[in-house]
Amino acid sequence: MLEKQTIAIIGPGAVGGYYGARLAQAGQAVHFLLRGDYQAVRANGWIVKSCDGDFTLPADRVHAHRTAREMPKADLVLVTLKTTANDQFETLIPPLLTEDSVVLTLQNGLGNEDRLAALFSPTRVMGGLAFTCINRIGPGVIHHLAEGQIRIGEFAQAGPSPRGRRISELFNAAGIRCDVLDDLRQGRWHKLSWNVAFNGLGAAMDLTTDQVVGTPEGVALATTLLREIIAIGGAVGVAFPEDWVDRQIDKTRAMGAYQTSMQVDRRHRRPMEVEAILGAPLRVGRAHGISAPMLEVVDGMVRAVDAEIQARSI
Amino acid sequence: MLEKQTIAIIGPGAVGGYYGARLAQAGQAVHFLLRGDYQAVRANGWIVKSCDGDFTLPADRVHAHRTAREMPKADLVLVTLKTTANDQFETLIPPLLTEDSVVLTLQNGLGNEDRLAALFSPTRVMGGLAFTCINRIGPGVIHHLAEGQIRIGEFAQAGPSPRGRRISELFNAAGIRCDVLDDLRQGRWHKLSWNVAFNGLGAAMDLTTDQVVGTPEGVALATTLLREIIAIGGAVGVAFPEDWVDRQIDKTRAMGAYQTSMQVDRRHRRPMEVEAILGAPLRVGRAHGISAPMLEVVDGMVRAVDAEIQARSI
Repeated sequence: MLEKQTIAIIGPGAVGGYYGARLAQAGQAVHFLLRGDYQAVRANGWIVKSCDGDFTLPADRVHAHRTAREMPKADLVLVTLKTTANDQFETLIPPLLTEDSVVLTLQNGLGNEDRLAALFSPTRVMGGLAFTCINRIGPGVIHHLAEGQIRIGEFAQAGPSPRGRRISELFNAAGIRCDVLDDLRQGRWHKLSWNVAFNGLGAAMDLTTDQVVGTPEGVALATTLLREIIAIGGAVGVAFPEDWVDRQIDKTRAMGAYQTSMQVDRRHRRPMEVEAILGAPLRVGRAHGISAPMLEVVDGMVRAVDAEIQARSI
Repeated sequence: MLEKQTIAIIGPGAVGGYYGARLAQAGQAVHFLLRGDYQAVRANGWIVKSCDGDFTLPADRVHAHRTAREMPKADLVLVTLKTTANDQFETLIPPLLTEDSVVLTLQNGLGNEDRLAALFSPTRVMGGLAFTCINRIGPGVIHHLAEGQIRIGEFAQAGPSPRGRRISELFNAAGIRCDVLDDLRQGRWHKLSWNVAFNGLGAAMDLTTDQVVGTPEGVALATTLLREIIAIGGAVGVAFPEDWVDRQIDKTRAMGAYQTSMQVDRRHRRPMEVEAILGAPLRVGRAHGISAPMLEVVDGMVRAVDAEIQARSI
């Protein structure tokens, strides 16, 4: 039997809302720190349309909070903030921490664990990769389209840890497949490669994944970006399987007409995670003298789209 | 007094419809070869909303034709076909030619004069640059937003020609400012540079011109592309003024929220002029060993958008 854990979800959009609602449904004490969705979730709970079965976490079973200070201390702090809000770590997370609290980020891109480690000590930081096609389709309403698996690992040590296995059991007991990674950094770069290609092209060009992989010309673009990330990862010791590019293309074909998160942000004219997904690996490549001409252009384009959105919203 | 000329307009979309209607209004014998707009123009004439004054060329004053074979021989054949239809030159143009007919292309991009010269002899070919913000907003309905000037020149000889001056007078007498170029090739590359930057980014990213020049990040993209074209042009002996990039950015700022022709094509899911506008200069650059990494990416992106559109339309 698993002990009941107190879990804080910081910044629940689609990912945090979905995993938090599943954990709460499985009996964990889940506390959500909400902004825009607070009223809707208080009124209607979390409404989840999921390929693994629709469900609602009713309002009377949701612990919804508007500030971190009113939340209880947590055994596990699950960080699902948009990376564009990472400057809020220092305000939102300290009130939740005991000496033993684990901080697990499920955010996209590179640099999140490093920032959390610098602020709250490396040993309490874990990183996780959420492999899921999921969109928030309205306040408190989540559409989970495909996959859903999580892979977690330690930031400050190699190999699986006992607490990693315990947290993995928590997720699995809630119906969320969760593995423990031997090498978090490798897992993060592997996942990043897909995000660079498909979030990058989706946001720069406003194309859905099936529009990218539906023609040889689109596959050529994604292939070039994947190869650039493989080269940059290689320069910092991250190995990719021989057939990695083909596997990413095949996996994406199976997704259908998916809007990546940055394309969704573009369409809704919201800030995009350009820094975590494109900027961070681009800087690693530059620092190691790896040429990545398409990543340079795609990064510049997404920054231009992002800047235009922010200029109009002032 | 100018003699009345017989003018054939081949492929009148916005550009050919507008200039042809102005020339007809000024008393020239203008014959339009129409496809999709035939019924509308037969019924309602050309309806023009223009920054230089709205007008209608009534149906009973329009010579509309559905095939080139039923058209009279022309003194001047004005080619305004979309460059994606350049493989139709051989069918559409020969029935219109006498020994003295001049073929003047007002099409976008590189390579059109060369193709006409190869088919119909270099000496009868002239090229023209239409500097105009103009869209076809419905069958037989044209919206002319800004500018409108034409610059024409000889393909096979340097310097202004007597027939160039006569054709220029025709346009000017119809209220269309028309200059004669000393150097058509230079003029074409100068205009091309704008099209590469703004048609390229507009089609690849689905952005209007004001969205591109509205932020430093967008200006940086356009600047890089302009510099790449300046470098490629330089390799084939085309000089650009020192302040060319700034002038293009400033000119574009003055245009407001303009959708370039390739962005319009993207939105209407029509074939795009990627070959004439992006592919031709890219090949010139490659042949001369000029590095143009952003043009490479933008060309690849627009081809991917174009291919996706064509894949869905089958």
